[in-house]
Amino acid sequence: MTITAQDIFKDLEEIRRKAPLVHNITNYVVMNLTANALLAVGASPVMAHAPEEVEDMVNIASSLVINIGTLSEPWVNTMAKAARQAKKKGIPIIYDPVGAGATPYRTHTIRMLIKIAPPAIVRGNASEIMAIADDACKTKGVDSAAAVENALDSARWLSEKYGCVVCVSGATDYIIDKNGMVMIKNGHALMPKVTGLGCTATALCAAFAAVNPDHFTATAAAMAVMGIAGEIAAEKAKGPASMQVEFLDALFNLTGEEIEKRLKIS
Amino acid sequence: MTITAQDIFKDLEEIRRKAPLVHNITNYVVMNLTANALLAVGASPVMAHAPEEVEDMVNIASSLVINIGTLSEPWVNTMAKAARQAKKKGIPIIYDPVGAGATPYRTHTIRMLIKIAPPAIVRGNASEIMAIADDACKTKGVDSAAAVENALDSARWLSEKYGCVVCVSGATDYIIDKNGMVMIKNGHALMPKVTGLGCTATALCAAFAAVNPDHFTATAAAMAVMGIAGEIAAEKAKGPASMQVEFLDALFNLTGEEIEKRLKIS
Amino acid sequence: MTITAQDIFKDLEEIRRKAPLVHNITNYVVMNLTANALLAVGASPVMAHAPEEVEDMVNIASSLVINIGTLSEPWVNTMAKAARQAKKKGIPIIYDPVGAGATPYRTHTIRMLIKIAPPAIVRGNASEIMAIADDACKTKGVDSAAAVENALDSARWLSEKYGCVVCVSGATDYIIDKNGMVMIKNGHALMPKVTGLGCTATALCAAFAAVNPDHFTATAAAMAVMGIAGEIAAEKAKGPASMQVEFLDALFNLTGEEIEKRLKIS
Repeated sequence: MTITAQDIFKDLEEIRRKAPLVHNITNYVVMNLTANALLAVGASPVMAHAPEEVEDMVNIASSLVINIGTLSEPWVNTMAKAARQAKKKGIPIIYDPVGAGATPYRTHTIRMLIKIAPPAIVRGNASEIMAIADDACKTKGVDSAAAVENALDSARWLSEKYGCVVCVSGATDYIIDKNGMVMIKNGHALMPKVTGLGCTATALCAAFAAVNPDHFTATAAAMAVMGIAGEIAAEKAKGPASMQVEFLDALFNLTGEEIEKRLKIS
Repeated sequence: MTITAQDIFKDLEEIRRKAPLVHNITNYVVMNLTANALLAVGASPVMAHAPEEVEDMVNIASSLVINIGTLSEPWVNTMAKAARQAKKKGIPIIYDPVGAGATPYRTHTIRMLIKIAPPAIVRGNASEIMAIADDACKTKGVDSAAAVENALDSARWLSEKYGCVVCVSGATDYIIDKNGMVMIKNGHALMPKVTGLGCTATALCAAFAAVNPDHFTATAAAMAVMGIAGEIAAEKAKGPASMQVEFLDALFNLTGEEIEKRLKIS
Repeated sequence: MTITAQDIFKDLEEIRRKAPLVHNITNYVVMNLTANALLAVGASPVMAHAPEEVEDMVNIASSLVINIGTLSEPWVNTMAKAARQAKKKGIPIIYDPVGAGATPYRTHTIRMLIKIAPPAIVRGNASEIMAIADDACKTKGVDSAAAVENALDSARWLSEKYGCVVCVSGATDYIIDKNGMVMIKNGHALMPKVTGLGCTATALCAAFAAVNPDHFTATAAAMAVMGIAGEIAAEKAKGPASMQVEFLDALFNLTGEEIEKRLKIS
């Protein structure tokens, strides 16, 4: 399971060539950034959440993002409807369990959605991934190393149960499926200071999954591209707002050489 | 029907002087950019979508934007209510048929709204304008030149049926009403890489329509100002995110000299 | 009631150290900027508006922002539910009466919410503060000086009636409670050209109130930090969009020395 800079750049070029339609049902806070990031990577974003059209939109999409960052009952119903249709049509679903564990409503909602239509990919931080799996996985403790171990156990459980790829993202991104794990150590400390870069990573996973049926490689490629664009951006940024601007510009201009030079995968 | 740089700058100065209130019922993705673009051009943006207040807000507005980019039933109902009130009060309505043709729901909604309250202006890309008129206009073919011809036929039909101005925007913007057509060739290839610049163009049409009862000139002026600000921005931008920043700054700082120097109208 | 640059920087450092969770029920237009500004100042933003989770989220938050910029009935109901829970738990509520006075719906809603759960802080411009108090305060006239006097009278009345801090913001920010008033004269004319910087000020009040139970000082500190970051930003900005970028970067990088050097409080 070796993933090279060439593999990643090949997928990126494929996105730029095909401009796949990525259907997003996501939170209000990040919609604009998500759309801009999808455009910057070369994909075609669309947002649609009405029950009247959500199945029609899924039908013409190449992948579906479901992000629970600002839920309400009508949106949850539409997410379920879209997920069912995506499952029926074989369109990959990428879930972002924003805030799972923070309130029971979020935890229950993401679990319910995943049961309705299994993920191609789930991407979240350690606590979100643990919250989805919680009842099923034993907790090893609360110090930092144990927390990562817990999250990886949860990710493995999730991956096995639903036959999906799970990404536990953070300073190191762990990408897990039934066949193993890769780690990506690209990225920069300013990234979590920009609202919605986690949600952006999820949307990029969807862009890569739209062109590569090997969702493990697609997820690794998306996370590597995120981290590398973040590193390039951080060299010019003076704070979190210029970081966001530089990040999107770097994503748009990303070359195979930069990926080759910077990729930290293992 | 000659429109000069002086005409355009005069309208821009009028917006800056009067700061007309532009009421937007628009999509979640672009709300922030729309508000910032209206402020940058000199107008006063307001967003309001509750049935309880939408008529009160229309009553104090100088123009109304209805943009169907992220629909749902409550919003469609409010759009209809606002449109009826604007019609009653003689306030110009500017429609943006985002994604018309992509799903039946969007196509039906925009047609229904336009029937309830005719547009002052409709601005969309070629496929959106064709989708509104579809059943009424014959299709000439699918190659690129034929597609533009189809869109212009649809625009002429729409303009005649509803007595409105129609703008088919793209690399060339076509502005059409019963008296004829002008073309604007300003703009830059980076613009479609920024989410919501089409929606921004629609909002600027509303700002110009708020100060100029000649909606044909208002639309041409808005599209010219968009394109020229885009050209100025592109000279400094390094990618789509810096493009957005430079665009809004250029819009804010736009001078009569720049309009004079760069305007490509015919 | 002397507030020094040291007091302000101490609170800012406390926010950066504790990263308090600020729960926002706010308008669609500004959500992204609000979240980014809260991150830039060192706080942890969360947005949640579903009745199913809003009390759970209030329970883990250190302060609650209620902003009426884009209302609808379901959101008003959730705002009321969140406000009740915050009152019960003793969590400070910071209200932003966006557009109060523009429509009866907004005026009635903010008055109703404030009656349900009294504010820790209300921040609005002069006309919004007057609109809340309107029936209770006599109007002195419409020239500019009289308008400020009217707003200050309204603010004093509101402060006394609800035992809260009121900030009337503008070129000069007036912070009022039962013990007196301070004025802050920091800021820059480009700030009102950026959508949502008023809402940002309200969110910063909530960040400061989350770490300082003296809400008068917290409000003054927030408004001073806003104004000073705005001044630093304006020295580099070329228009409203670069202003927003520079503002967030300045907020993130703000030092005690800059506050000391620039603070204009009296």
